[in-house]
Amino acid sequence: MSQTSTGIFYGVGVGPGDPELITRKAERVLRAVDWIFLPSGRSGSSFVRRIIEPLGLPTNKFRQVSLCMSRDRTEDGQAYRRAASEIMEELHQGKSAAWIAEGDPLFYSTFLHLYETLCRYPWVRVEIIPGVTSTSAAAARIGFPVARLDDRVAVVPACYGVQRLAALLDAFATVFLLKVNSAFDELLAQLASVRIPVRAVYVEQVGTPAERVVMDLESLRGQELPYFSLVMLRKEGQG
Amino acid sequence: MSQTSTGIFYGVGVGPGDPELITRKAERVLRAVDWIFLPSGRSGSSFVRRIIEPLGLPTNKFRQVSLCMSRDRTEDGQAYRRAASEIMEELHQGKSAAWIAEGDPLFYSTFLHLYETLCRYPWVRVEIIPGVTSTSAAAARIGFPVARLDDRVAVVPACYGVQRLAALLDAFATVFLLKVNSAFDELLAQLASVRIPVRAVYVEQVGTPAERVVMDLESLRGQELPYFSLVMLRKEGQG
Repeated sequence: MSQTSTGIFYGVGVGPGDPELITRKAERVLRAVDWIFLPSGRSGSSFVRRIIEPLGLPTNKFRQVSLCMSRDRTEDGQAYRRAASEIMEELHQGKSAAWIAEGDPLFYSTFLHLYETLCRYPWVRVEIIPGVTSTSAAAARIGFPVARLDDRVAVVPACYGVQRLAALLDAFATVFLLKVNSAFDELLAQLASVRIPVRAVYVEQVGTPAERVVMDLESLRGQELPYFSLVMLRKEGQG
Repeated sequence: MSQTSTGIFYGVGVGPGDPELITRKAERVLRAVDWIFLPSGRSGSSFVRRIIEPLGLPTNKFRQVSLCMSRDRTEDGQAYRRAASEIMEELHQGKSAAWIAEGDPLFYSTFLHLYETLCRYPWVRVEIIPGVTSTSAAAARIGFPVARLDDRVAVVPACYGVQRLAALLDAFATVFLLKVNSAFDELLAQLASVRIPVRAVYVEQVGTPAERVVMDLESLRGQELPYFSLVMLRKEGQG
């Protein structure tokens, strides 16, 4: 590891799923760092590991951090704290470490938990590499214009946005509802009551082999949907 | 050019300024296409050209499109239409073409003008490569958390957002005001009247040699600011 990056902690966004959406900077940093911390599911499978697989990085610098990602954060809180100590120990020894974030590190990401802990230590140097978000990737996938000229854009988790859908669509040209798995049937009900014509598209796990794009939202009624699911809404006539 | 991409028109996001924020996919496409259309200013200087410079692409496939980017769109409308005809002529001849967009092609980008024209021709195949946005890059630059868990995010051009600042900050954890050059002194006045504690940071031309980050917004009063300028606002106590 070169001296300039000794002891640096990197938050590295690797985009939402397609390995080709990794930036040149993320790739350079991942090749250079001593340790790569990978959040992974309970089963040991890691979503972000699949994204970086094609880079062919040496797996002996991978360190998996097992998370359950449930609404109850107690258990994951412990896992984050343990990871934070391990990272700080490595930084102390002059080693560099990266935490891989799906999408962008500051946008609904696991990185934020680490970041909040490590920010309390002024000696810790942090560098953040932004990434392509799932909202940008989903829009690109289906050619959905997000913002023209003076358009306004809202990004809201579905659990909040669904009840305020009419007001959001009134004030914003484009509305992204994230994690729609938690409130999909209510979303259908709210959409039916919106009086202006709205274009709505459902996208899950964009850029991965499991990607699914659905134009007819009604066809998803009652289905179990994954966490990485979003709906893009745009008022018709907005281009 | 391989047969699979013959005749395809690519909208390629190259990120907001730092050449390292180009994705692997954008790089691959730019190397493969026959023609690269580059929006450029009146003087012939091209902001996006500087972003892709380090890729060392053959300059004989560059085609500059001169735009004035003023509020009056009449003249640029002609330039876009002319570029659209030139692109369609190339696609007809089995050639591929890319339009380079600063940031992300569907997020306040010149690409949208081309896209709207070319979408009218069903034979035109379009593929969009998403890019890192200026909002993600600015947040990463200063370690500004954009969205945790159930946070809501609004992105609004300053000309709209400034007058509704209190309401926006009430409903959204993070608010990005774009193109703040057009309404900066009014923004200062509105911010002074907001009663909740808000963290505000100004960033211009993020990731370029001309980048500037200013924490004390008051110090910018009365200054002439560039078009690529934004202010990030986040309610204190939101992490």
